Amino acid sequence: MIKSRAAVAFEAKKPLEIVEVDVAMPKAGEVLVRVVASGVCHTDAYTLSGADPEGIFPSILGHEGGAIVEAIGEGVTSVAVGDHVIPLYTPECRQCKFCLSGKTNLCQAIRSTQGKGLMPDGTTRFSYKGQPIFHYMGTSTFSEYTVLPEISVAKISKDAPLEKVCLLGCGVTTGIGAVLNTAKVKPGDTVAIFGLGGIGLSAVIGAVKAKASRIIAIDINPAKFEIAKQLGATECVNPKDFDRPIQDVIVDMTDGGVDFSFECIGNVQLMRAALECCHKGWGESVIIGVAGAGQEISTRPFQLVTGRVWRGSAFGGVRGRTELPSYVDMAQSGEIPLDTFITHTMGLEDINKAFDLMHEGKSIRTVIHF
Amino acid sequence: MIKSRAAVAFEAKKPLEIVEVDVAMPKAGEVLVRVVASGVCHTDAYTLSGADPEGIFPSILGHEGGAIVEAIGEGVTSVAVGDHVIPLYTPECRQCKFCLSGKTNLCQAIRSTQGKGLMPDGTTRFSYKGQPIFHYMGTSTFSEYTVLPEISVAKISKDAPLEKVCLLGCGVTTGIGAVLNTAKVKPGDTVAIFGLGGIGLSAVIGAVKAKASRIIAIDINPAKFEIAKQLGATECVNPKDFDRPIQDVIVDMTDGGVDFSFECIGNVQLMRAALECCHKGWGESVIIGVAGAGQEISTRPFQLVTGRVWRGSAFGGVRGRTELPSYVDMAQSGEIPLDTFITHTMGLEDINKAFDLMHEGKSIRTVIHF
Repeated sequence: MIKSRAAVAFEAKKPLEIVEVDVAMPKAGEVLVRVVASGVCHTDAYTLSGADPEGIFPSILGHEGGAIVEAIGEGVTSVAVGDHVIPLYTPECRQCKFCLSGKTNLCQAIRSTQGKGLMPDGTTRFSYKGQPIFHYMGTSTFSEYTVLPEISVAKISKDAPLEKVCLLGCGVTTGIGAVLNTAKVKPGDTVAIFGLGGIGLSAVIGAVKAKASRIIAIDINPAKFEIAKQLGATECVNPKDFDRPIQDVIVDMTDGGVDFSFECIGNVQLMRAALECCHKGWGESVIIGVAGAGQEISTRPFQLVTGRVWRGSAFGGVRGRTELPSYVDMAQSGEIPLDTFITHTMGLEDINKAFDLMHEGKSIRTVIHF
Repeated sequence: MIKSRAAVAFEAKKPLEIVEVDVAMPKAGEVLVRVVASGVCHTDAYTLSGADPEGIFPSILGHEGGAIVEAIGEGVTSVAVGDHVIPLYTPECRQCKFCLSGKTNLCQAIRSTQGKGLMPDGTTRFSYKGQPIFHYMGTSTFSEYTVLPEISVAKISKDAPLEKVCLLGCGVTTGIGAVLNTAKVKPGDTVAIFGLGGIGLSAVIGAVKAKASRIIAIDINPAKFEIAKQLGATECVNPKDFDRPIQDVIVDMTDGGVDFSFECIGNVQLMRAALECCHKGWGESVIIGVAGAGQEISTRPFQLVTGRVWRGSAFGGVRGRTELPSYVDMAQSGEIPLDTFITHTMGLEDINKAFDLMHEGKSIRTVIHF
């Protein structure tokens, strides 16, 4: 058992409290890591808001971390003490039906316990004043020390700055991967990206890497356009500038629609617009954003019968242990400009300010330095 | 101008009237064909019912024909008098953006005029007592003589019996093509097929050709099960036998869902069920059925974000002039048992009986012999 500073979400809709929690040592197949830095993502805010039907409290949020292995449990062989790792909310066991299918990154090995805020053995490693604190997304990176299953860490180069590549633990990889892994955008394709938060901007980077011919960035906040263009968007569109549906605007701009579109917000109306702005015959739309509980998407089936394809992407379709190290290398070589995303850094004690900045739309990413 | 016996739909919801219409000779780029036989499809009934928002009257319905070229207009080079052809409601111009994309069969060369019941020059070739009669789906095979654009006929082997291979002009090709061309089912994949009409039964044939490991045929009419099994369905399921959603039943039967599902009816609730019975991570659902005007499909976006794919198929993704001849050859070699589909044959004068049999669920296909 060790002591760890942590930001605990004792209940929904309340600020996080910075306290000293107890962290149990890793059991068999688990690792204890020291979190060096963690991004603060909209999904953390979503769960804290109480809108997440799977939210569990009290818990330690955070899922976008850069960390160093401090101790390993029995039988752990793929990482050693001192290794640099990125925690994975989508694990990769390499043994389940999903991993073995070769068709998806959605490893299901520990899904049921992870969804309940527990380690695979059904217990928690966190406690505060003797009371259990739940894990979150299998990562809980808002704690200086956290315990993860071995299958939930990606070992990365020790040369990479953890306070930057932590962003590859969620948003940036999600956006780039959706373009490259899920949609498989090809050189010359046209792309529309709905929403220019961290994921949307990352999708812009992905589209540039894929050599898309047109990258149309869409947001109702024109303050996002400069950075989108800096990253490679070829056009920026504000739906508020038009009195007709945005899908019609995009279809007109592109002689019938785009080859690929990406919804990066979680708004079901925009998911529909993103589908319907795709080109008849072959356009594909990828849902990346997470919609509110119970919300549904809809469209006329004719949209699909006439050749459009509707799909989704989680963690960019990226297999964490296998593929994330290469994303870190891309960041190191300058192909993924992580600095552009980091608008704020602060200590753990200020983490509630990071949520405020996000809600006010003033940050792309705040990185917490421990 | 020649005389032609035809079944004319003078208005919606009324029986067809067998009259002698006038057919103008083909203009440049058009062909005059003599229809030897025509299937009667649900889409004809849908338009006749008045529910089709694009239905135009008076018109000559019919789109599943087998015919012989009787005359060609100026500039026609791809077919000659005496050639056997299948009329195509999805033409193939080989010059438009869609044909040249290599990604779709949805040629758009004559879409706007075809949708208005007119030939590409904006006029009609049919008239009755001097009043124009509109074309339907660019084919109008319920007339002994009909005029089509050159790009709307597939030249086929003269050895094939037109009174059978006419069925390849719509339903059979649509079902088989959705499995082979659109979904690209692979050996060993599991398949669920919703609805065992002509298209669903054809999808069963397609799944057999693709060497699917399980072919689950679903219908609320168990009278369809015998023929489905005869064609190769491995299991038949009647949703009425269960008190829970059919998607849950299929998921349980298949350890998590099928690899591919096909909706072959046009029921938006079944389209949702078909998507949701697909396997997390990779399952793909193909909408083939045509829904009623204004109806919409819906689901939780989580279904897509967790790896399912929703797509559609029109005419089985088949390029008519290029690929349909090979379907005819498959029928000739016995790989497509067309006889199984032809439950009734009758003369044009009895065509309203064919609609009655369809509405009563007593026929798979009635073929009209001219």
